Parts: sequence; C-alpha cells; structure tokens
Amino acid sequence: MKTEHVNQIASAVNAVKATDVKNFYFVACGGSMAALATGDYFLSREISVPSKVYTSNEFVHMNPRGLGKGSVVILRSHSGTTPETVAAAKFAREKGAVTIAISMDVESPLCKEAEYIVHYNYKDGSDVIDGETGVYYSLIFGILNALTPNEKYERLLSQLKNLENLFETNKKLTYDRAFKFGSEYKREKLIYTIGSGAYYHQAYSFTSCLLMEMLWIHSNAIHSGEYFHGPFEATDFDVPFLIIKGEGPTRPLDERAITFAQKFSDKVEVVDITELDYAGIDEDLKEYFGPAIAGAVLRQYADGLAEHTGHPLSVRRYMWKMEY
Amino acid sequence: MKTEHVNQIASAVNAVKATDVKNFYFVACGGSMAALATGDYFLSREISVPSKVYTSNEFVHMNPRGLGKGSVVILRSHSGTTPETVAAAKFAREKGAVTIAISMDVESPLCKEAEYIVHYNYKDGSDVIDGETGVYYSLIFGILNALTPNEKYERLLSQLKNLENLFETNKKLTYDRAFKFGSEYKREKLIYTIGSGAYYHQAYSFTSCLLMEMLWIHSNAIHSGEYFHGPFEATDFDVPFLIIKGEGPTRPLDERAITFAQKFSDKVEVVDITELDYAGIDEDLKEYFGPAIAGAVLRQYADGLAEHTGHPLSVRRYMWKMEY
Repeated sequence: MKTEHVNQIASAVNAVKATDVKNFYFVACGGSMAALATGDYFLSREISVPSKVYTSNEFVHMNPRGLGKGSVVILRSHSGTTPETVAAAKFAREKGAVTIAISMDVESPLCKEAEYIVHYNYKDGSDVIDGETGVYYSLIFGILNALTPNEKYERLLSQLKNLENLFETNKKLTYDRAFKFGSEYKREKLIYTIGSGAYYHQAYSFTSCLLMEMLWIHSNAIHSGEYFHGPFEATDFDVPFLIIKGEGPTRPLDERAITFAQKFSDKVEVVDITELDYAGIDEDLKEYFGPAIAGAVLRQYADGLAEHTGHPLSVRRYMWKMEY
Repeated sequence: MKTEHVNQIASAVNAVKATDVKNFYFVACGGSMAALATGDYFLSREISVPSKVYTSNEFVHMNPRGLGKGSVVILRSHSGTTPETVAAAKFAREKGAVTIAISMDVESPLCKEAEYIVHYNYKDGSDVIDGETGVYYSLIFGILNALTPNEKYERLLSQLKNLENLFETNKKLTYDRAFKFGSEYKREKLIYTIGSGAYYHQAYSFTSCLLMEMLWIHSNAIHSGEYFHGPFEATDFDVPFLIIKGEGPTRPLDERAITFAQKFSDKVEVVDITELDYAGIDEDLKEYFGPAIAGAVLRQYADGLAEHTGHPLSVRRYMWKMEY
C-alpha cells in the first residue's frame, strides 16, 4: 500500500484509539452506504462497541441521540461531492464526533468537512490494495486491531495484498457463468436479489446501483431470513432470483432460501462464495475476504446483463443530468 | 388498558429499570420485525443507549458481540410460534440478556422461552389500546420514561387511549382514497413503496407482508433518502409508487422523493400522514402517533387492492401450507 494511504489510515486509527469510543456510525448513500455496512457487520461480530448504519439525509434529520463526543462517524462518497453526506460530516463534526471521510478525491467537499481523510485510488492501475476495498478493509481491521489487538487481524491485514490477484482470478473463474446469466436473464424486467450477513449489503448494492440504477431492471434486495416472512409468496416459476450463498455464519439462511426458491422458480442464479478462489487467504479469514471478493464477482454479472441487453452500465436518464 | 397488560408491561419496564442497560436488540421476522423497528427508531431519537434491529435468524447466526448481560432483547411474534424468533429468545436468554416477548398468545413457545411476557389482544373487540399498537407503545414509552423520566412520555402514555377513536376516524377519512387506489392500481404487477424515519418500517411492512405476501404484487420498500442514489433510475411514466409523506423530522426527505416521482411517473399515490385526524393528541406528540395511525390507514390501501383484484388478503400459496 502506498505510504500516503498508510499514513492516512494510521492517523484515523490513532484518533479512534485515542477516543473513549461510545459508538460508531456509518453514514453514506446508496452503494457507498452498502459498502460501509460491511464494516458495521464486522464490528458487530467482533466487538461490543455499538455501531449503526444511516443513509446520510436520515442521519441528519432524525438526529440520533447517541451522536456526540465519543462517537466515531465514518462517511463515504466516491466523488466526495454527495451533498447529503457532506452535510452529515459537518453535522457530526459540530456535535463533537470523530469524523473520518473516505473518498477518491482528497480535495472534495466531503474531505474538507471531515477531520480525518482516507483516500483511495480509482482507475489508476492500483485499484485493489490502494483502491476502495483494500483501503476500507485496512481502516476497519486497523480500528479493530487497535481496540482489541488480535493476531487474526494482523494476519488479515497482511493478507490484503492478495486481494488484487483474487479479484483477477475470481473474475476469470466466474466470467462464463456471469455472461451466461446475462444472456439468459436479458429479457427480465425484474430480478430479485437475496443475501444475508455481510452479503446482504452486496445484494442491496446490486439491486440499487446495478439493477435499478444502471440497468433499469426492477428489483428488491431481500434478506435470506426475511424471505420466508412475506416476500417468498411472490415466488413463481417465472420470477427470477440472484441469490448470494455466503461464506460465513449466516450461510445456512442462504441455503434455506435457495432450496425454497429453486423448488418454485425456474430462474434461480446462485453465486456461491465458497466456490471462489481464496489463494493466500487462511481458512479462518475466508469469511472476511468473501464479501470483498463478492463485489468484484457480482459486478461481472451486471456486465453480463449490460452486454446482452445492449444497455451500458454508464447510461443514466436522471442522475447527473438534472437537479433533484 | 386491562390490568393484565398493565401488570405485564410494568414488570418488563421494571426489569429494564433494574438493569444497567448496555444495549437494546429488537428481534423478530417480517411484519413483526418492522413493527419492533418503530421502537428502535424512537429509542434512537430519544436516548443515547444503543439499539439495533435484527431478523431473528440473522441474530442467532451472526451472534452480535454486544449481546450479553446488560442487553435487553425485545422479541415479537404474532402467534408466538415463529421458530426463528423462539430460537432467538432462547439464545439471548442463555447469554444473560433480559428478554421480553410480545405476542397475542401467552401460552406460545416464544412466551415460554422469554423471561418477560407482554401479551396483546387480537380480534376480541379491544384491539387498539389492549391490542398490538397500544401495548407496544406502552412498553416502549414506559421504558423511555423509566430511563429518562419526561412529562412528554407521561402525556403520550395518557393519550394512547385516543388511539381506538383515531384508528376509526382515520380509516373513515381515507376509505374512499384507499379503495380508489385499489381500483386504479389493480392491474399493476409491481408497486414500489417509499418512506423514511419510522415510516420506512411501515413501507417495509406494506411491501413484504401486504403487497408481496398477501397480494403477490412485486415490490421494494425504498428509503426516501436512498431513492436518489440508485433506485430512482427505475422511475418511468408507468412505474407505480406508494409514498408515505411522514409526520416527523424526516418529512423533507419524503417531500423530495414525491416531487421527483411525480415529475416522471404518472402513478404516484401519496399518503400524507399530516392530513390525518389527531383528535386528542398534543401537537408535540403527533410525530409519535403518526406511525401508529399510519399502519391502520395503509392496511386499508391493501384492502382496496384486495377488493379490486379479487385476491383476498387471506390467500397464500406457500405460507402455512408446507414445510419450508
């Protein structure tokens, strides 16, 4: 990892370490919120300090009572210009929270409002370890290791360098399947996604940003455990599902959803995270790396749909085109 | 309120008061989870003690590290038989948490697993103050008043008796509109719902339990703040939305979503919670009562769809009909 990123992360981690942390808030919008939510999941699994995820505008308006001195607020915006997230950083900082902004642009309004900045590279050829995944994982597990030192976190941080290779090998491994999915599902007007644990947020991101935003395909990210408490009644032979079969403690929930969906729908695509390549990753660390790799793999499923629908992922009808 | 309920709630509240509360967990499935989430919202607004909502099976499998002595776990299942929630109660109690089960059946497995029981009446003619809404609000604001005594909570608790009347008057007030909605939207295969704050959970419940489960209409509950970060690209002139315009601090988020949706879709149904009748409710308490009344009003929109689609809300194809 580049020295610049190492130093930024160290500053943020040290600030957290120097704080009597009462709570963490993860605050962003859309895909950035979903990405941050993976951190909320890991923190909730690993430490007893409470954490919560908010979409930026809800955070500012509902004004959670727990926010104040002792809060650590982690915010993220790819461009660093998302107005709601910029406002949330200002709001949190004024309330006395430690604010950490994650963005690809250190000169952005978000980075100007936050006390600490964690920059990631984007499309410059160093996208993995110095990119959003490597940098975010370094921050989250750096914080965990600072609060409750554990050799497991040390190993995880040292194995992050394998991510670059894992993204490549796993994209190759799933390329044919993803593009076949694109061909088979190209006429679908609606595709449900299902997931649990950290993968629920991958499903949310796929639904909101890839299917609905980039492909104009209707969707809903259903939690594997919630599927049976309402949504499953919408299942029918011609209703399509993309289900993430996670690597981690909630995998049994996904298995149950898959078994049911496959029984009553002819269109169930399963993305099994345990079948991916984990070269260089220790067995006990797979559940941490799975969600990171899943993101790259799922993106390819969207590429497959884009290819076969002739609808490039870059096309928008409203976003960036008007005031809203 | 009947003495039985008063006593059960007092026992639960006293147990919370006697605990050095580290965190609250709200644990249930589907519509019960959404109902509990209103409590999470109010607690997060009013006190700094952290709280979090989990679907029951995720709670047990992901095993949040914060769960233990000092945790208060509030669980809910209408019948008290939901296996995942029963398992969650057992799990939480074994970890040393104070467990409070809410159900219509005190003899149910859930009530047997939990330490404290809060029973509500169902379809016996005393459904409001002694029903799920009255009883749950009494518990939540009883807890708030015990932890941080406030005359506002006292007033709120004393005004809960008006709920029965408010359910009736507001159902009458919105009857025509709801059944017109049913007529106009009866051929729709997909209806999105949108909401924020405590109303997001109403949207979730309407999507999961009423549209998808009871009416087999595809849906997704979109947070008003998240709409602009992906989902709004799926908006088109013929894409239907039911948007809850809430009473409370996040109303500006709903207004923004409505303005956009109305510009690009010809099918936007707005349920404005401020236009409802709040007879007997103090001005500063409206934001607490709004979500309670919204539930009864929204149910009527589903009744309207049921009437005009000829698909009764009681029909299921999988639920209760097979093992899954």
